[in-house]
Amino acid sequence: MKFQKILIANRGEIAVRIIRACRELGISTVAVYSEADKEALHVRLADEAYCIGPTLSKDSYLNFTNIMSVATLTECDAVHPGYGFLAENADFAEICESCNITFIGPSADAINKMGDKAVAKQTMKSAGVPVIPGSDGLVEDLDEAVMIGRDIGYPLIIKATAGGGGKGIRIAEDEQALIKQITAAQQEAQKAFGNAGVYLEKFLTGMKHVEIQVIADNHGNVVHLGERDCSVQRRRQKLIEEAPCPVLSPDIRQRMGEAAVRAALAVNYSGAGTLEFLLGNDGQFYFMEMNTRIQVEHPVTEMVTNVDLIKEMISVAEGHPLSFTQKDVQINGWSIECRVNAEDPDRNFMPAPGKIQFYLPPGGPGVRVDSAAYPGYSIPPFYDSMIAKLIVWAPTRQEAIAKMKRALSEFVIEGVHTTIPFHQKLMEHPVFNRGDFDIKFLEENEI
Amino acid sequence: MKFQKILIANRGEIAVRIIRACRELGISTVAVYSEADKEALHVRLADEAYCIGPTLSKDSYLNFTNIMSVATLTECDAVHPGYGFLAENADFAEICESCNITFIGPSADAINKMGDKAVAKQTMKSAGVPVIPGSDGLVEDLDEAVMIGRDIGYPLIIKATAGGGGKGIRIAEDEQALIKQITAAQQEAQKAFGNAGVYLEKFLTGMKHVEIQVIADNHGNVVHLGERDCSVQRRRQKLIEEAPCPVLSPDIRQRMGEAAVRAALAVNYSGAGTLEFLLGNDGQFYFMEMNTRIQVEHPVTEMVTNVDLIKEMISVAEGHPLSFTQKDVQINGWSIECRVNAEDPDRNFMPAPGKIQFYLPPGGPGVRVDSAAYPGYSIPPFYDSMIAKLIVWAPTRQEAIAKMKRALSEFVIEGVHTTIPFHQKLMEHPVFNRGDFDIKFLEENEI
Repeated sequence: MKFQKILIANRGEIAVRIIRACRELGISTVAVYSEADKEALHVRLADEAYCIGPTLSKDSYLNFTNIMSVATLTECDAVHPGYGFLAENADFAEICESCNITFIGPSADAINKMGDKAVAKQTMKSAGVPVIPGSDGLVEDLDEAVMIGRDIGYPLIIKATAGGGGKGIRIAEDEQALIKQITAAQQEAQKAFGNAGVYLEKFLTGMKHVEIQVIADNHGNVVHLGERDCSVQRRRQKLIEEAPCPVLSPDIRQRMGEAAVRAALAVNYSGAGTLEFLLGNDGQFYFMEMNTRIQVEHPVTEMVTNVDLIKEMISVAEGHPLSFTQKDVQINGWSIECRVNAEDPDRNFMPAPGKIQFYLPPGGPGVRVDSAAYPGYSIPPFYDSMIAKLIVWAPTRQEAIAKMKRALSEFVIEGVHTTIPFHQKLMEHPVFNRGDFDIKFLEENEI
Repeated sequence: MKFQKILIANRGEIAVRIIRACRELGISTVAVYSEADKEALHVRLADEAYCIGPTLSKDSYLNFTNIMSVATLTECDAVHPGYGFLAENADFAEICESCNITFIGPSADAINKMGDKAVAKQTMKSAGVPVIPGSDGLVEDLDEAVMIGRDIGYPLIIKATAGGGGKGIRIAEDEQALIKQITAAQQEAQKAFGNAGVYLEKFLTGMKHVEIQVIADNHGNVVHLGERDCSVQRRRQKLIEEAPCPVLSPDIRQRMGEAAVRAALAVNYSGAGTLEFLLGNDGQFYFMEMNTRIQVEHPVTEMVTNVDLIKEMISVAEGHPLSFTQKDVQINGWSIECRVNAEDPDRNFMPAPGKIQFYLPPGGPGVRVDSAAYPGYSIPPFYDSMIAKLIVWAPTRQEAIAKMKRALSEFVIEGVHTTIPFHQKLMEHPVFNRGDFDIKFLEENEI
């Protein structure tokens, strides 16, 4: 099968990224947009564009009915969900299939299995993927929680099974705190996710966030594309990602890669996905969760492997086998990505929407900019605040950092506050330069 | 030695390119500019910038005295000449050395040997580099010219020894034309280059322009970095370049590379240089000239080799040995460059200077833009009309063409005419897509 037309059920840079891939593949594109996004770049770049509802995401970018109506009326063969919005919504994937429109991503079943964090953990454990010590599935009651706490020790994390991406998490420092929090956590989870299930995990410290990119076809082939170090986080939001991970030994890299492939096989995975792990400085790693979609930080993997992940996602969704095997994958050089957000780093990263008066992205060798910004563009206050991903490639980490500093220094965005000054300071930080930072780096260091 | 500060004796995108490399290497930069270039991007990006004279190049960018004064007063360790202007001026290279400022390029002697085309041809012949059949050095008088004509056959080219880059060339279809033109050619050469010497060459047809990038250090090491096909030319000006060449067999590639290395060794070359060859469809190739500088089209070589040529030029000028050997050089994938000029392709490529009202370069994976343009920039009418180099990389030629089409389609430059529409048509042309075009392609085809 060859897709003729794809609907992109997203906005911002990822919609632009997917349109670019489609255009290079000779596939027509249909953009959808909310009333706030009439002037958005993805609308201008797509072959066709349709308004799907008012500003609020729930009325537009999450509006199944309107999106499927556009896809059907414009005779799309497939829908690419990007990340966020409907990307990990199993119901949406199912509706696509029932309309005979291919959902570019895994099956609803795989999304469900990985979306329920407690089920995912059990599945991973059975597949021989190391998991964080904790409860065996959901915690039923207080007594059970206390027993587990005594067994694995404190501090403990209470996690909502329907949460993810840093949401639905509480930390209990001791038994008293656990007793105090467990019921509240269940009630909160019920309210936030419509699912009261929570489970317990050992709270590990000094850990890096290291994730493995996998891609799978519908013929049982799964390949991993090495790791990304995403430990530079602020309130569990990634700010900088890089590939490879500065502290990973070839041996651990191989073991993590193999574990990621086992994980994908265990849920009959298809498409691009990411296995997120915590990595200790003893080389032990533990499954956190699987993101069953393309991720914001996918470009750093593309830069070091020369694989176009969006094109490969489309190809496997068309039914083709993967265009490469595990042994074709070579990690070459170093790539770093900075998320440039319209936020004011001097005012606690407060979102700073507004009109971009002047815009000039950096250029030259080894610099890639994935953005939906342009001169005169008004960043709406309703969606996320990321306005550009600045990605660099160089032969070594040291050269990549030098290139990122150079690129940041010439990136001009006037009219709104951005996180560029923050990234510039971070690139100078000795701990960042050393590379052995863990996920508490930004909490524990003044940038 | 490690340079602390470099003066960039150039303007436009190449000045920006060199500033970027310096910044990544931690080297301070001094820009120079004419009165017309106060608002130029290279002036804004450099650490320091000084006006070196009025608008006309001869008063500013070719003004030895003012440039050397700035270099001395700002305590620069070195001067990078870019391309054009002083890049192949042996006197300038000598003056730099006499001021104890490193000229980032080859010795004055090497520039001289390659600058005199008849001398260069003799030197190449002695070094075993195939040359175009023709006169042995300069033609003294009409009788000798006629004898040579009878010997090698018509048509013949009459070339000024001080010419180059397509300048100082006449074609004689038969003996009568030769007799008529030889004296005029000598007089013209005297007038244009201050050197009346001309030589004769067989006029070859059906040839490709294929050139080999070399880089050499001061320790006798020379490495070649594969070829570029620059056959898409209009009035001997390159418009599109690519690497590798679509028709080159591995065997001929190796022989051309080896010939290029012999050529560089024969003149004790140091720095980046290019051996330009004519390649026939029988696989025979002939030396045309050597450009003893970085070239406009160097990025396509950088894209397929991952070597940063500007950084390597600086490193060898510092006295370091080359950072790689011949066997480290791997050609990977395909790269194409389109020169985007401020010209009106519908009006015979008439230069179209003016103010850029809106500017948005393309982005995403595999796209590189080397430019000195920005929104609101006024392109002065006094220098060359190139405003951006759009360079793409993809695994295969077909994918690179698709990517170039995609990138061209989203490149927005408003306020001036550009050659973007011309490049878009060219990318669709069946002959271009086939790849077997020769240097007459644009003359013989309606684009």
